[in-house]
Amino acid sequence: MSPKAMARPGGRSARVQEAVHAAVRELEAEQGRASLTVPAVAARAGVTPSTVYRRWGDLHELLSDVAVERLRPEEPPADHGSLHTDLESWARQFLDEMASPSGRAYIRDALLGDPDGSNAGQCSAYAADQIEVILARARGRGETVPDVDVEAVVDHVVAPMMYRILFRPGQLTVSYADHLVRAVLTSPVSPD
Amino acid sequence: MSPKAMARPGGRSARVQEAVHAAVRELEAEQGRASLTVPAVAARAGVTPSTVYRRWGDLHELLSDVAVERLRPEEPPADHGSLHTDLESWARQFLDEMASPSGRAYIRDALLGDPDGSNAGQCSAYAADQIEVILARARGRGETVPDVDVEAVVDHVVAPMMYRILFRPGQLTVSYADHLVRAVLTSPVSPD
Repeated sequence: MSPKAMARPGGRSARVQEAVHAAVRELEAEQGRASLTVPAVAARAGVTPSTVYRRWGDLHELLSDVAVERLRPEEPPADHGSLHTDLESWARQFLDEMASPSGRAYIRDALLGDPDGSNAGQCSAYAADQIEVILARARGRGETVPDVDVEAVVDHVVAPMMYRILFRPGQLTVSYADHLVRAVLTSPVSPD
Repeated sequence: MSPKAMARPGGRSARVQEAVHAAVRELEAEQGRASLTVPAVAARAGVTPSTVYRRWGDLHELLSDVAVERLRPEEPPADHGSLHTDLESWARQFLDEMASPSGRAYIRDALLGDPDGSNAGQCSAYAADQIEVILARARGRGETVPDVDVEAVVDHVVAPMMYRILFRPGQLTVSYADHLVRAVLTSPVSPD
């Protein structure tokens, strides 16, 4: 979410945001991505184009905010009873969602209209938070957790998957996710 | 380079490409990024706007091709006499260049106007080729090279740096690059 959007939480501001986000989702679903212009989104949301420009700057920044909302995990990672299975299951799901056509489009939107990097940072924080839940749960179970922390999982599981999604789209398989998880748990790398 | 651009190598086609790429670089240097429009670029290059649209589709695709050209390494990685030093030196330079404002802008451009992923793939291939040179040189010296291949270095050195550049821009230090290189050489992860 851009600083502009965060500067006015609640009340009318929150209603405008919700209406504009919903207008983007609806127009895209009904008429495709090419239909997304600031005037069209504003008309659907029942606000003036200048309201949209004032708040989001331009269409790219609006689409970035909408993308980050869509990339927000809806629930905590599933509990399968062990660190390895939880992390593997989470990594598979992450790869599946982010490598899908819509996942790629959201990542691209999030990165694009993000002059200060806060939306990209939020995407990364979503992943880190989910990993933190998985690691804390393993410790809570009394599992012997290898010397691995959130940073190591971000660096050696999330980052390689995201790099392939963005730069080498042909090489994404479930076994790749499984391999990365196995490697980080068996030869963990200290964060520094 | 987009398939459209690759479909007509040589002759007039090559001259048009060079003129248009040069026009982008000049206009950006002289008047800033906001000055880059297809009509302005075409005028500077001495071609019609329809020539640009026919060949590149739109401004984003043109900027993506220009960015990939700029991200092409100009020379093989420096030879410092050992695998560790060569790889560390290369990783530091990669991080320094890619994390710079212009490096980030090129990465973003390359990813953006790249509907088929070929330009992003080319960026990744540039890095992989440089790493291959470093590994082959170490073997040629008779060094004992740990069980590490290009894929492992891309996954565990390049990908984490690129992830931070794109998603967590505040956490980029030389020691981070050094740490990733040390880790991949001392606890190498098999590619699968």
